[in-house]
Amino acid sequence: MKAAFQGVHGAYSEMASKVLLGAECRLLPKPAFENVFEAVSRGKADRGVIPIENSLAGSIHQNYDLLMAHDLHIVGETHLRVEHVLMGHSSASLVSLEEVRSHPQALAQCSGFFARHPRIKATAYFDTAGAAESLVKAASSRLGAIAGAQAAELYGLKILKRNLENRSHNYTRFLLIARKPIKPAAETAAKCSVTFRPDKNQVGGLFRVLGVFALRDIDLLKIESRPDPENAFAYRFYLDFAGSPADKRVAKALDHLQEIVNDYRLLGAYARDPSFPKRPRAKERAKQ
Amino acid sequence: MKAAFQGVHGAYSEMASKVLLGAECRLLPKPAFENVFEAVSRGKADRGVIPIENSLAGSIHQNYDLLMAHDLHIVGETHLRVEHVLMGHSSASLVSLEEVRSHPQALAQCSGFFARHPRIKATAYFDTAGAAESLVKAASSRLGAIAGAQAAELYGLKILKRNLENRSHNYTRFLLIARKPIKPAAETAAKCSVTFRPDKNQVGGLFRVLGVFALRDIDLLKIESRPDPENAFAYRFYLDFAGSPADKRVAKALDHLQEIVNDYRLLGAYARDPSFPKRPRAKERAKQ
Repeated sequence: MKAAFQGVHGAYSEMASKVLLGAECRLLPKPAFENVFEAVSRGKADRGVIPIENSLAGSIHQNYDLLMAHDLHIVGETHLRVEHVLMGHSSASLVSLEEVRSHPQALAQCSGFFARHPRIKATAYFDTAGAAESLVKAASSRLGAIAGAQAAELYGLKILKRNLENRSHNYTRFLLIARKPIKPAAETAAKCSVTFRPDKNQVGGLFRVLGVFALRDIDLLKIESRPDPENAFAYRFYLDFAGSPADKRVAKALDHLQEIVNDYRLLGAYARDPSFPKRPRAKERAKQ
Repeated sequence: MKAAFQGVHGAYSEMASKVLLGAECRLLPKPAFENVFEAVSRGKADRGVIPIENSLAGSIHQNYDLLMAHDLHIVGETHLRVEHVLMGHSSASLVSLEEVRSHPQALAQCSGFFARHPRIKATAYFDTAGAAESLVKAASSRLGAIAGAQAAELYGLKILKRNLENRSHNYTRFLLIARKPIKPAAETAAKCSVTFRPDKNQVGGLFRVLGVFALRDIDLLKIESRPDPENAFAYRFYLDFAGSPADKRVAKALDHLQEIVNDYRLLGAYARDPSFPKRPRAKERAKQ
């Protein structure tokens, strides 16, 4: 099994690939998301792994666009907690550091650390794993990088501090994509991702769409509208719901949905990530 | 009038501030979004300008969190087309460039340009305007930057190429925030932004919410669910709809909504950006 991902070795996407496909999977780093889709479409890779949304930064519409542009299917998902780790050369320590390298977004998510250590300069890098890699050649106790723990392991760097981020509730959802769709058994805890435009771009159109699911007691897991900047009447919706098309009730709902919307596409049916979101403790549930 | 924005002078947020408040407005650059909210809350600035969503990169949940954490109100909005411009020293040309600096996201959005000019190295910078500013001291024909046209003007740089981005449909929506809410007149083309959790996190709960608007013929402009990574039963919704609370029908809808949801908050009522989304030409409308 060969899987394409965007980034360099040690990236969060590589970590997600291993979670989805196991450590034996062969991994193919690609410079851009588009190259991941192309590698799978052309058979250079069996699977692709792409981030689709982050709990702080939102949905990556660009990857929804690429899903629409390619004849590929979602066949799995996983959620990864983004845990930023400060790493450096074996001779480095929190006291010796003068410069820390990472992607600007990661640096911003660790702004509290830099505020507490005003002596340390933050330097922008293309990506977190690339920042870690740059420390290998430099071999200086002055330099550090912020990346995932897997990058420290891969590049033989020392972990100087874990959980550097200001907010711990930072998760990225990754999708596994393939040339052929799967249809999870009706008994599986599965989900479907669909996209469409309501027949009218009015609340009445969306109200009818939700009726398709509400009247069949099917749980919605995600709903998001996305305006088309060039056309006020071309709102597109992304909708995830619980169930597999192998379940008759779900199959009927998908039929019904196609009757009342435009530009419908089933992006995929796949097993739900059982670890996300976490279920609250019994006490918290009782409150709700 | 003094307005706080995140970034340095010449940033896209500064441009949005001028569109929203006029060129005479005094502008206060801040290092992080949180500092913008603090400046307004503490009265150091009269207004704040924050990006809330981008047509390729999605909603900036972080700024929704900051809206929830502060007692501030949305009082305006505007949409800015993100147009990346290649700029350099007056001695620079497309032929002399060897290195181009910008934020990694801007560099990625211009990947086609770098593919066509493999001789030019892309270097990551904290922000687009900062990359432009860095060229002033360097004064070298080897160096370029990718930023908004306003940065070229501010730093006296030569524009070498416009519309460098792969995709022209790239817009960012900015919000104007203030300590006191406004209530647009009923006749104004206004919108309201609300956030809430449905009483049940099932499709039935959301179906009832949409009923509040559908049964009163109120148009939805945005709907987005956001899962709480730590609690499967704590979905939060963001909803924008057309109308002002000065209109009785809208006031009744807001009352009705509060009856059936939890953690409700009206984030603001304000005049709609009349220029967005564009209205399709008559021919395109007829098709829909």
